Amino acid sequence: MDELNTTAEKIRTMEIRGAGRIAVAASAALRDYAMSLRALPMDEFNIRVEEAARTLVDTRPTAVSLPNAVALTKRHTATNVPDAIEEISGNAERFIKNAGEALGKIGRIGAERIRDGDVIMTHCNSHAALSIIKTAFDQGKDISVIATESRPRRQGFITIRELNDHGIPTTLIVDSAVRLTMKKVDLVVVGADSISVNGALINKVGTSQLALAAQEARRNVIVAAETYKFSPRTLLGEMVEIEDRSSDEVIDPQVLKRLPNVKVSNPAFDVTPAEYIDLIITEVGAFPPAMAFTVIKDYLGLELAL
Amino acid sequence: MDELNTTAEKIRTMEIRGAGRIAVAASAALRDYAMSLRALPMDEFNIRVEEAARTLVDTRPTAVSLPNAVALTKRHTATNVPDAIEEISGNAERFIKNAGEALGKIGRIGAERIRDGDVIMTHCNSHAALSIIKTAFDQGKDISVIATESRPRRQGFITIRELNDHGIPTTLIVDSAVRLTMKKVDLVVVGADSISVNGALINKVGTSQLALAAQEARRNVIVAAETYKFSPRTLLGEMVEIEDRSSDEVIDPQVLKRLPNVKVSNPAFDVTPAEYIDLIITEVGAFPPAMAFTVIKDYLGLELAL
Amino acid sequence: MDELNTTAEKIRTMEIRGAGRIAVAASAALRDYAMSLRALPMDEFNIRVEEAARTLVDTRPTAVSLPNAVALTKRHTATNVPDAIEEISGNAERFIKNAGEALGKIGRIGAERIRDGDVIMTHCNSHAALSIIKTAFDQGKDISVIATESRPRRQGFITIRELNDHGIPTTLIVDSAVRLTMKKVDLVVVGADSISVNGALINKVGTSQLALAAQEARRNVIVAAETYKFSPRTLLGEMVEIEDRSSDEVIDPQVLKRLPNVKVSNPAFDVTPAEYIDLIITEVGAFPPAMAFTVIKDYLGLELAL
Amino acid sequence: MDELNTTAEKIRTMEIRGAGRIAVAASAALRDYAMSLRALPMDEFNIRVEEAARTLVDTRPTAVSLPNAVALTKRHTATNVPDAIEEISGNAERFIKNAGEALGKIGRIGAERIRDGDVIMTHCNSHAALSIIKTAFDQGKDISVIATESRPRRQGFITIRELNDHGIPTTLIVDSAVRLTMKKVDLVVVGADSISVNGALINKVGTSQLALAAQEARRNVIVAAETYKFSPRTLLGEMVEIEDRSSDEVIDPQVLKRLPNVKVSNPAFDVTPAEYIDLIITEVGAFPPAMAFTVIKDYLGLELAL
Amino acid sequence: MDELNTTAEKIRTMEIRGAGRIAVAASAALRDYAMSLRALPMDEFNIRVEEAARTLVDTRPTAVSLPNAVALTKRHTATNVPDAIEEISGNAERFIKNAGEALGKIGRIGAERIRDGDVIMTHCNSHAALSIIKTAFDQGKDISVIATESRPRRQGFITIRELNDHGIPTTLIVDSAVRLTMKKVDLVVVGADSISVNGALINKVGTSQLALAAQEARRNVIVAAETYKFSPRTLLGEMVEIEDRSSDEVIDPQVLKRLPNVKVSNPAFDVTPAEYIDLIITEVGAFPPAMAFTVIKDYLGLELAL
Amino acid sequence: MDELNTTAEKIRTMEIRGAGRIAVAASAALRDYAMSLRALPMDEFNIRVEEAARTLVDTRPTAVSLPNAVALTKRHTATNVPDAIEEISGNAERFIKNAGEALGKIGRIGAERIRDGDVIMTHCNSHAALSIIKTAFDQGKDISVIATESRPRRQGFITIRELNDHGIPTTLIVDSAVRLTMKKVDLVVVGADSISVNGALINKVGTSQLALAAQEARRNVIVAAETYKFSPRTLLGEMVEIEDRSSDEVIDPQVLKRLPNVKVSNPAFDVTPAEYIDLIITEVGAFPPAMAFTVIKDYLGLELAL
Repeated sequence: MDELNTTAEKIRTMEIRGAGRIAVAASAALRDYAMSLRALPMDEFNIRVEEAARTLVDTRPTAVSLPNAVALTKRHTATNVPDAIEEISGNAERFIKNAGEALGKIGRIGAERIRDGDVIMTHCNSHAALSIIKTAFDQGKDISVIATESRPRRQGFITIRELNDHGIPTTLIVDSAVRLTMKKVDLVVVGADSISVNGALINKVGTSQLALAAQEARRNVIVAAETYKFSPRTLLGEMVEIEDRSSDEVIDPQVLKRLPNVKVSNPAFDVTPAEYIDLIITEVGAFPPAMAFTVIKDYLGLELAL
Repeated sequence: MDELNTTAEKIRTMEIRGAGRIAVAASAALRDYAMSLRALPMDEFNIRVEEAARTLVDTRPTAVSLPNAVALTKRHTATNVPDAIEEISGNAERFIKNAGEALGKIGRIGAERIRDGDVIMTHCNSHAALSIIKTAFDQGKDISVIATESRPRRQGFITIRELNDHGIPTTLIVDSAVRLTMKKVDLVVVGADSISVNGALINKVGTSQLALAAQEARRNVIVAAETYKFSPRTLLGEMVEIEDRSSDEVIDPQVLKRLPNVKVSNPAFDVTPAEYIDLIITEVGAFPPAMAFTVIKDYLGLELAL
Repeated sequence: MDELNTTAEKIRTMEIRGAGRIAVAASAALRDYAMSLRALPMDEFNIRVEEAARTLVDTRPTAVSLPNAVALTKRHTATNVPDAIEEISGNAERFIKNAGEALGKIGRIGAERIRDGDVIMTHCNSHAALSIIKTAFDQGKDISVIATESRPRRQGFITIRELNDHGIPTTLIVDSAVRLTMKKVDLVVVGADSISVNGALINKVGTSQLALAAQEARRNVIVAAETYKFSPRTLLGEMVEIEDRSSDEVIDPQVLKRLPNVKVSNPAFDVTPAEYIDLIITEVGAFPPAMAFTVIKDYLGLELAL
Repeated sequence: MDELNTTAEKIRTMEIRGAGRIAVAASAALRDYAMSLRALPMDEFNIRVEEAARTLVDTRPTAVSLPNAVALTKRHTATNVPDAIEEISGNAERFIKNAGEALGKIGRIGAERIRDGDVIMTHCNSHAALSIIKTAFDQGKDISVIATESRPRRQGFITIRELNDHGIPTTLIVDSAVRLTMKKVDLVVVGADSISVNGALINKVGTSQLALAAQEARRNVIVAAETYKFSPRTLLGEMVEIEDRSSDEVIDPQVLKRLPNVKVSNPAFDVTPAEYIDLIITEVGAFPPAMAFTVIKDYLGLELAL
Repeated sequence: MDELNTTAEKIRTMEIRGAGRIAVAASAALRDYAMSLRALPMDEFNIRVEEAARTLVDTRPTAVSLPNAVALTKRHTATNVPDAIEEISGNAERFIKNAGEALGKIGRIGAERIRDGDVIMTHCNSHAALSIIKTAFDQGKDISVIATESRPRRQGFITIRELNDHGIPTTLIVDSAVRLTMKKVDLVVVGADSISVNGALINKVGTSQLALAAQEARRNVIVAAETYKFSPRTLLGEMVEIEDRSSDEVIDPQVLKRLPNVKVSNPAFDVTPAEYIDLIITEVGAFPPAMAFTVIKDYLGLELAL
Repeated sequence: MDELNTTAEKIRTMEIRGAGRIAVAASAALRDYAMSLRALPMDEFNIRVEEAARTLVDTRPTAVSLPNAVALTKRHTATNVPDAIEEISGNAERFIKNAGEALGKIGRIGAERIRDGDVIMTHCNSHAALSIIKTAFDQGKDISVIATESRPRRQGFITIRELNDHGIPTTLIVDSAVRLTMKKVDLVVVGADSISVNGALINKVGTSQLALAAQEARRNVIVAAETYKFSPRTLLGEMVEIEDRSSDEVIDPQVLKRLPNVKVSNPAFDVTPAEYIDLIITEVGAFPPAMAFTVIKDYLGLELAL
């Protein structure tokens, strides 16, 4: 339990961060913990595994990859501990392998949607979205990228550096210039924080503005998302809570202190409705957003009473 | 001519800035210059006035208040110099008086559209928009404001300071949060750089995103604009050029230098189509945007062959 | 003043009702009152006329035909009382004559828009809308009407009686069936309580639902409105207040009393945005709603400082 | 067969009414009838069960819960009568149990979508919709409801009584006020008569007007529907017939008789297209309407050649 | 009267054709006829001029330029014949001169809206639309054109020949390819048969499809139309009749004869609603379509009782 | 291999043409070829079958029915050649039988959507679409058809002949008249070249214009498509290439040669987005377009690594 607690702590303190890394670490920790329980009777084993699963999930209650990884890892149909451990180990290997290969597969599937000459707008800094763009570029397609600054944390600066280093011609714009610039864009490609059962996308604040401007200008919007980003809980009606982050990211706290009538709203994410999204690229294929329920059912296979 | 040249120079160097101040200075300079030509024969007088008008207009070729002020000031029907000077002086007085009173009138007319309890979103820093908001607040209406940061130059910081000092509860958001935040908004109020004959609004980049998000969420958009912001040239088909400003406003030039594949697009304005605007509040009344041609014709009264 | 007060009282108590009758009565009362002041000095005359005008307008502060009638009647440019009386009398005659002929002219102009075979949906009970429908029928066009019940006061029952007596085939529907029935409709024709400067229509609650359903189904919406229904005050930014009527119209007060957690909202009117209206038929021609400002300016000719 | 005929007769005469009660009664009747056939040879057994199924389904040809209940109950794979009876009994128990628990599950899943402070509009009187609203209220959420009158039969009066007795603050409006009132609404929650394979909702006339007005105002629409409301027949292309009910519900027949040119159209239901619906809450989860086919296939599991 | 009759006959037989040529010929014929009546008394003169006007207008009852030309020419305020002739002559000179210069002015005003690099789609064969395109090309702008075939009469073949001879790169497409090709287009420029008071465009069948596809793809639509194409009659509610032309233009009559169940619908024009049009370029300026009433009022100046 | 090569050659040279006939021929050829390999060892057998499959698929790289037929035929799970042949034979029989019955089933399922009195618009010449129309007509429904010419190859002429011979009243229109004529239409029924995973329809150029005009006018669009028209490759992100056909179909090459600045764009297909399609009628049921993924998965059952 010590090692599992260590992993849980690292996830809580964000020493381990990023949806993919969190999921992989949790799956491995649960596997290792289950393997350490070989001597227990079956009932006890199941109780402990369930407790460990809960410990891991509780570290970041709003992350969606974490409960997916844990649920996919822990489930078994065995009636004795060695068999259960074998199943859980197998689950963990499969999950970790799939997660490791997902970015590459998303890149290859998504790159098929990029045509020679395309100008692609992206927002914030998404590994999966950039995987698509880089793969298309590596295939020799003559593409360029328009990247938003992505205030307040300016992850757009990471994006333009990554694209610059990859040799891809890139233009930086402020977030306010999205609609004006959309007429030069052929395609919008963004990542996902999570995807709900009705195909809505939860992602970095501003994503829904790109999607809205793309919809208005009749440009396609592609979302790059590993299957473990799909949220089974929304099947039960649960809604996404939008985290409100510190005002310090937006304005110097010393300045704000002198403005008693002013406060700051700094939402981390926004919600893009399914009708503004054309295709979701996952490692198992390209889906219209209305298929989110099927992805959750077929590829996560989780029970409702999660 | 020296004083007129001095004024022209101040406009060119942006020592005199802001659509209203430029217009008033140009009108006064032209009046004073005309008065100094009392001794000239009529033909010579007209030629000199025309030259002076050209000098003034050429200082800022894209500003719309400048040619409006000059054209409204210089026109006369006199056949002798004293009469011409009298007409021109009268024109200048009228223009300057109207310009001086415009903000107050816009505030009063626009405040009629604000209801008790309204949450108003504004963008950038517009005297006319703030005049409406402050007037409504001074009338005792319980309102609050959501102000955008307005990157890259962050004029939103000026706006929140002004509103704070006026005692109006204000929330600052980053530009990416406009669509998410729109559901809390009752009304959008923005200023204008200029308004074209088809009712389109040219204003600080990002304005069209507010308007688009407001349209999507079925919120009303009100534009506050003095009549001298309406652009008669667009009658002749002329399109608005969007100024591309320095990349230094967006990214540290030292950083940019190390990113050879990256450039910056920094447009100063964008164009909001008329169908996203509900009402334009001017000092002579509240108009739907389709009335822009009538405003140009009736209140500017300028000839086509401007 | 006695007779004018009597008229004012009749308007207040709704003994005189209906936008047209109110307007005509007020115009005549003001004319007669002005004629009774022949012996007064000019200053006194003007003050008294102004007071009388105020008295009339204050009887029904939200009606729009009343201030229009009064303002169009009282204005004069005379410098002596006999001339002023003559101008005012002329104004009143013109207004009363125009008002009397308006319904017929609207009928003839509007009937041009009705084609043989049209199925027309109407709402509530509008003289002007029915004038168009009856005129088209009298021209021999084979038309039929779908009339809504128009809860809570069921003015649709008056409409179906009127149409029945005119021999026009009519179908009655409940208000909830508007969208379903719209697919059988060729054209929507409704009346107006008032029309604002931005072309929005204020009319019996439910009108905006007809217009929305017509817009969705791509059917045209025609509004029949005398020019005195256009609201000059909205030029100054004033918004329309929607009257909330008694709950007794909706539910038996004895029943409501036994439901402590229930209240009733019974708005009398709603606002139809200009973009859902195709044409406004007035007695001076057929206008797109964006022309409302021009109608106010050219046909009402009222000053802003009304 | 007598008891089954009795049940069939009660369904036909609407002594047993309501989609759920009809379905449960039919399932039980078929089970009991099958159990009474224990002595028959297998061929005869199957023929009789099929006849009984047909008898039940024919009592209300347009209800959708009835054929679903019958088809889910009667199917078996047995080759002898005792096994067939056991399967059919099991089917019936499962169906009746699920139906009994469905309302509670829908309430819990749907209540997750209700936020503190929400103003919810509902139409007509739906057990499933009210289950969601009451569950959210019972969870301590500070919500209120706007209920439509739902002419002609005014089922809204039942709804406000139910909500009043549950202590939920409720406002009653006439059906014409839906669009005007929508701006005060956060969420629309309605029930379902049936749901077709393309996700369209058939429900009480007026439902599609709520949905249209919600779509225009960008409010979400949630439909509460047990899985047995989904219509497998629409898979085969069958369209929904809208029942036209008696004119007596709308107008006094004595009055109507005196109006020879007037008739009444009184449709019972209307069709809300899938694109106006955000989520369908069933007892097995929350789905986007495009998933209707999957619900039919996975949860009803009915063969095409039904 | 002989010469006037000759002109009338040439218009009727379409020896004189094209909106502009018809208008100019009618204006000149009416002027010449009026000048031949110098010897008549005033009353007689007016009667004869009115008869002649009627004769001309009746030759092509659906053309809109013809009654405009006649009405603008015939009107006078004189009280004696010589003065009336002088006014009518002046009217005719002005009309003919304006008509002659209109194409050039439209070309210059419209060319301002064309940017370097623009790909322009046009439909059918419009002198005014091509004037804009050629002027922009002559200004050195690097533009290209996509021309539709314009079945059934294939006027697109005339257009591509004209553009080819002017050296402008042109691509021919079939009418079915409009929507697919729209994504390569920057701007749509078409001519006008006539423009109604509500800003709707009547033009060659297929125009409304270009406009619809442009609207969907968010491309601007510009209409080139001389002021005499605006239809004052629509002010009185009159609707546009769409001429149904011979089936021979679509299918070999011998083939059609063998197909007894088949007929042909061959409408000559269609109606493009104002909301799909961005700007109407006339010889007096560029207007939004909502300004059509103002153009009719200010530039045609025709009385309602035309 | 000779016979298989012969079939492949006939497909390549379009001696065998039409999606259905190609699919059936390929399936049969592969079956016969597999049966001729009975003497081979298992490894060799699999290699040869794979080669043969490749040969067939490569004859028409863009057809979608061909790889579907081949993949559905060749797959087996056998470990010896006789069993493999049996499986492959069974696959082929099933595929050929299904393909043969598909048109009839589509006709019956689709005809359920046709109501008495419907006016149906169709485009080009689709067996599946006409199967629906003829079946509805044969059921005694009083329907009529509007058929487009479908330039450049005028397949509409084949359609009107077929409908004429079936006795169905038909109206021919040019492609430009689609939007104008849509107001007389109740329903659009078209065929499919292929359907992508996101429910988009690839069909004869112009189809998307019908669908767009239908969407604007709120008419339903039904697509008739056998399941083998669904494209599994689009699951992997592959986009549809639109074939550009010879200019000779559009313009006489002799004329074109004399126009050096003119070229022709003659795309064969266009893409109709899923949101313009109401229902896809297949031989296994009627689906909303968002279900395309499920059809591909459940009815084609093809692996991703196709």
